[in-house]
Amino acid sequence: MSFHALPQNPVIALAGCTGAVGQEMIKVLEERDFPYSKLKLLASARSAGKTITVKGEAIEVEEMSPSSFDGVDLAFFAAGSEMSLSYKDILREKGVIMIDNSSAFRMHEDVPLIVPEVNPEDVFTHQGIIANPNCSTIQMLVALKPLHDLCPLKRVVVTTYQAASGAGAPAMQELYDQTQDFLDGKELTVKAFSDQIAFNVIPHIDVFLDDGSTKEEWKMIEETKKILHEPDLKVAANCARVPVLRSHSEYINVEFEDEVSFDEVQDALAKAPGIIMMDNPDENLYPMPAFTQGKDEVYIGRLRQDFSVDSGVSFWNVADQIKKGAALNAVQIAEVLLTYEL
Amino acid sequence: MSFHALPQNPVIALAGCTGAVGQEMIKVLEERDFPYSKLKLLASARSAGKTITVKGEAIEVEEMSPSSFDGVDLAFFAAGSEMSLSYKDILREKGVIMIDNSSAFRMHEDVPLIVPEVNPEDVFTHQGIIANPNCSTIQMLVALKPLHDLCPLKRVVVTTYQAASGAGAPAMQELYDQTQDFLDGKELTVKAFSDQIAFNVIPHIDVFLDDGSTKEEWKMIEETKKILHEPDLKVAANCARVPVLRSHSEYINVEFEDEVSFDEVQDALAKAPGIIMMDNPDENLYPMPAFTQGKDEVYIGRLRQDFSVDSGVSFWNVADQIKKGAALNAVQIAEVLLTYEL
Repeated sequence: MSFHALPQNPVIALAGCTGAVGQEMIKVLEERDFPYSKLKLLASARSAGKTITVKGEAIEVEEMSPSSFDGVDLAFFAAGSEMSLSYKDILREKGVIMIDNSSAFRMHEDVPLIVPEVNPEDVFTHQGIIANPNCSTIQMLVALKPLHDLCPLKRVVVTTYQAASGAGAPAMQELYDQTQDFLDGKELTVKAFSDQIAFNVIPHIDVFLDDGSTKEEWKMIEETKKILHEPDLKVAANCARVPVLRSHSEYINVEFEDEVSFDEVQDALAKAPGIIMMDNPDENLYPMPAFTQGKDEVYIGRLRQDFSVDSGVSFWNVADQIKKGAALNAVQIAEVLLTYEL
Repeated sequence: MSFHALPQNPVIALAGCTGAVGQEMIKVLEERDFPYSKLKLLASARSAGKTITVKGEAIEVEEMSPSSFDGVDLAFFAAGSEMSLSYKDILREKGVIMIDNSSAFRMHEDVPLIVPEVNPEDVFTHQGIIANPNCSTIQMLVALKPLHDLCPLKRVVVTTYQAASGAGAPAMQELYDQTQDFLDGKELTVKAFSDQIAFNVIPHIDVFLDDGSTKEEWKMIEETKKILHEPDLKVAANCARVPVLRSHSEYINVEFEDEVSFDEVQDALAKAPGIIMMDNPDENLYPMPAFTQGKDEVYIGRLRQDFSVDSGVSFWNVADQIKKGAALNAVQIAEVLLTYEL
C-alpha cells in the first residue's frame, strides 16, 4: 500500500481522545484551527457515547474498532503502545497515515521521528507511520538543533525535573491527593508512581534497563541521535520525577566540537523557531514549570558559559510536556504533512 | 595568638542556637555524646532567656556579646556570615577556635575547608577558623573523594534538587503554607524565595554572579577544588530548588582521567566512610529525599556507567543537608580536633 498526499481537508481520527494527551490534542486542533472535513473521536468502550464539543460541533465518542478507520486519511494515536501496535496493520491496509504518540515505533528504521522545528523534511520518508518523540526529548531537541547548526555538538549532559502529568491525568490527581494527605498527616496512597511523589523526588522514570539506566534516559539518548542524524553523538541523561503538576524542566550542558562565541549561541537560540528566551538574571527572570502551562514554546533561561569544557554552554529548559511534548508536536507534524508538497 | 590543642572536655559555645542549623547541632551534640565541660547557647536578644534542655541539662540561652566567649575553647557559628565576620577578631583575641557554618571564610587561604571524610588532616592548618563547606558541596565531596582516590577525576557535572530547608526554617514553613494555599485555591504568599516554590522548581539559589551562574553554583565548583586540592579540576554545577522539605538530591556525572572498571567504582563507594549504597534497580531501590531526614550518611543509588565519555559513571546522591550538610559536619570537625594529636 502506498500513501497518497493528504487532502487539504482530511478526515481525521483521534485514538485515545479522553486521555491527558488526547484531550490536549482536541484543544490544539481548535486553537490552531486545524483543517479537517471530519473528526472522529475514538476511545475504549468505557468512554463511548460521551459527547465532546470541538470547534462548536458536538461529536460523539465512538468505541474504537477496525471499521472506525474506514475513509480516514490521518489518525493521531494517543492510546498507548499496545493500541498503536495492534492497529498498525489495520491502518496500513486502509492507507491511513498514523501519527503515533507512543514509543512503539520510534526507533524503527522506516518510521521517521519528528520534531517539526528540527527535522520536518524527514516526515516524507514515512511508510505510513510517523512517530512523536518522547516529551523530554522534544523540548531538548528544539534547543539543541540551532546549537548543532551553529557548531557541531560534541557531548550533551541533560538532567530532568519531570512533572507528574508525564504519567497521565491520574498521576496528577495522585500528586494533589497525596500532598493534601501529607499536610493532613494522613497515610499516603501510592499508585501511579513507584513511591511517594508529594514533597519528594523519584529518580526513576519508566522501567530499568540492564545497564542501570532507565528507559526514559535511554529514549532521550537514542531519540536525540536519530532526530539529529548523528548516531555517534555523545549524550548522557539523568531523569527524575518532581512534585510539579505540569511542565518538564531540564538543565542541559552542551559541549561543542569547536570554538563558538557566547553571543552567537545566544543569538542562535533567540532566533530559533519554537523558543522563547526568558533570561535576565538581574530581574530574576527565568522560566519555571508553574508558569508555562498551556504554552506552545520551549522556554530557555540561565544560559551561561560552561567553563569546565573548552567550548560549551549550559542552560535551563522548560516546556509544557503535554502540549509541546506531545499533543502540539503531533498536530505540528500533521501540519507539515499538509503544507509540504510530495 | 596561637591556638592550643583542645582540651578533651572543652568549653563550647553555639552561636545561633535557635536557627535551623543551630537546633540540629544541639541534637547532634546529644546523639554523639560530644564531650564538653560546659555548653553555652548563644543567640540574639530576641531568644535570650529561653531554656533549652541538652543532655538532660536545662541551659538558658544568652544574648551573644563579646564577653560570651570568655573561657570558651571552641565556638560553633551558625548565625550567618555577618555575625561570623563581626566576631572573627574577638574570637581570635580570646584564643577561641571557630567552626563556622557560613560562607564568610570558606575561600580564605588560611582557613581550612573541611569534610571530615575527605580532608580531616587539613584541620590542623587552621589559624583559628575552620570552615564548614556549603551543604550541596559536602554531600557531593563525600562521594567524589573515594572516586578521586581510585582514579583522578577529569570533569564533574552536578545538577541539584535542593530542599526548602536549605533556606532555613521559615522557608520550610513557607513551602507548607504555600502548598496548602495552592490546594485551597488561595493567593500565594512569596517571601523566603524569589518565586512560588509550591509545585514549582526555581532554577536560582543564592545571588547571581556576572557570568550568569549563581553563587551556589560557584560555591560547588570552587569549594570542590579547594577541598580536593585540585585547583584545575573541571566542575560544572547547575542548582535548583524543588518543593521538598528537607534533604538535597544531586545527579552527578563523573569523568575519569583513565580507565577504571565499574566494579572498582562500586567497591570504592561502598567502602567509603559516610556513604550508604542504596542501589538495586530490580527492587526499585534508590535513595529519595523524603526518606533521608535525620540520617547521618550520604545515600547513593542509580550508579551506572556513563557511556558518553571514555571512562565515567553517573549516580544519584541524597543527604539530609541540615544534618550532614551542616550541623553534623561541623561537629565531626570538632571531633577531629579532639581526636588528633597536634
